[in-house]
Formats: sequence, C-alpha cells, structure tokens
Amino acid sequence: AQLALEQDYERFREYETRYRVLLETSREALALIEADNGRVRDLNPAAERLLGVAGGGLDGSALSSEFEDRSRDAFAVAANRAVETGEPQSVAVRTRRGFRALTVDAQLFRAGGEALLLCRLFPEEAPGGTSTEFG
Amino acid sequence: AQLALEQDYERFREYETRYRVLLETSREALALIEADNGRVRDLNPAAERLLGVAGGGLDGSALSSEFEDRSRDAFAVAANRAVETGEPQSVAVRTRRGFRALTVDAQLFRAGGEALLLCRLFPEEAPGGTSTEFG
Repeated sequence: AQLALEQDYERFREYETRYRVLLETSREALALIEADNGRVRDLNPAAERLLGVAGGGLDGSALSSEFEDRSRDAFAVAANRAVETGEPQSVAVRTRRGFRALTVDAQLFRAGGEALLLCRLFPEEAPGGTSTEFG
Repeated sequence: AQLALEQDYERFREYETRYRVLLETSREALALIEADNGRVRDLNPAAERLLGVAGGGLDGSALSSEFEDRSRDAFAVAANRAVETGEPQSVAVRTRRGFRALTVDAQLFRAGGEALLLCRLFPEEAPGGTSTEFG
C-alpha cells in the first residue's frame, strides 16, 4: 500500500507541473479564487497584464479589490450566483488601475473538498474605431 | 511520514482536478503530447473541434496523424527542435480532416521525469475577406 501511495504521489506531482505550465503559458487571462471569500489563489501573467498588477502582487487579496467600486458589487453578485447555481456566470467590470472594461466569466469547481472559482477575464471588444468607455 | 504523505496526496489530487478544469474549459485549442513519440496524452474540446475529431478519439495516437502528409514532416522537425533547444517552436500545418490551415506552437516541459510537449493550435488568420487556402 505504501508503494502504491508513493507511485500515485509521483503521478499527482506531475499534475501540479501540468497545471502550472498550462496556467503560466495561457494567452487567456485566468484567475483562480476561493469561492467563499474571493481571495486569489493563482493569477496568470495574462491576467496580471489586464489588471495592471505586478507579478505575484495579488496573492491572498480579493480579486474584486482590483475592480472599481461599483464593479465590486456586480462581481460579488455574479460570484455568489456561480456558487449557488453551479452555472457559469458572466459579468462586466472595470479595473481599478487603468479603468479598463473587462468581462469576467466565473465557473465553480470543487477540488480536494474545496470550492474554487475559475475566472476568465476578457478585454471588452472595442466597437470598430469608437471609444470603449461604457461601450 | 505516512500522514504527511497522505496530506500531500490530497493536495496533488487537487491539482489534477485544477489541471482538468483548466484544460477542458480553455478556449485555446490545446494538446499535450509525449515528446519522444508525439502520442496524444490530452486533447481538449477546442482542439477536437479544430481537428474535426470526435471526443477522446485521439488518445494514444500521434497528433501528427491528424495533419496532412507534408505537414507531418514539418511538425516532426519543429517538435524535435522544441525538445532539443527547449525553446518554443511555431509551425504551420494543415489538418487531414477538413484541410484547415493551423499554426501550432509547441513548448517542452518536464513533469514527473517525463518530457512532454504542450501544443497550442491556432486557426490561421483569414486575410480580410479573401480565401484562407494557402493564405
């Protein structure tokens, strides 16, 4: 049993590496947050660029602390709905730094007895040639 | 030591779930292949759509078997270079089913003593309004 456990251990270590490589190299802006308090577990480089934060700067703080005031409530409503319904939720927000318009898709999943939200951040499409402000 | 191992085990099981969620929900088309023989370990739904294959159909066969003849050599050269240099390589290929023009970015990483290539597949950009054939 001990040997089997150690073999599984190696296998699962491999998945941590796979997870890290996928996250770090993704062109999609991704944030993994705790479902109950919104704290950031992982934020990839693409998401750091969209939010205008330096590398690793958000670990442990709430993702919504990077949104401007009114966006925080909208995000909290969507996140709660994602947790309650289990259905992906989409919400428009604005970043605190840079005041940039984003869409955030939040999807619940459970891993190791813990509820997490995978959030994908998309810059709002600029309508052809016009301003994106409140677009 | 046994208890510590079991706690780690739980932690790494969580990473397998995180990896799966990231892979399955990604809008990027992703394939994880074995570096030494090109066999597909994981192919996400976005990649299945680009290649025109049904779910799970590629497990264990070579990714390049989904490319048309001349593309197979080009892909093999790029994959070998990615392994030898450790630098990401980009190559233009055409799919066997659908004859679709793609760019494949291949990046080497090592996990659990094994060499793997993470491949991202992008449809070739259609030049404004014209045909994409040999674009």
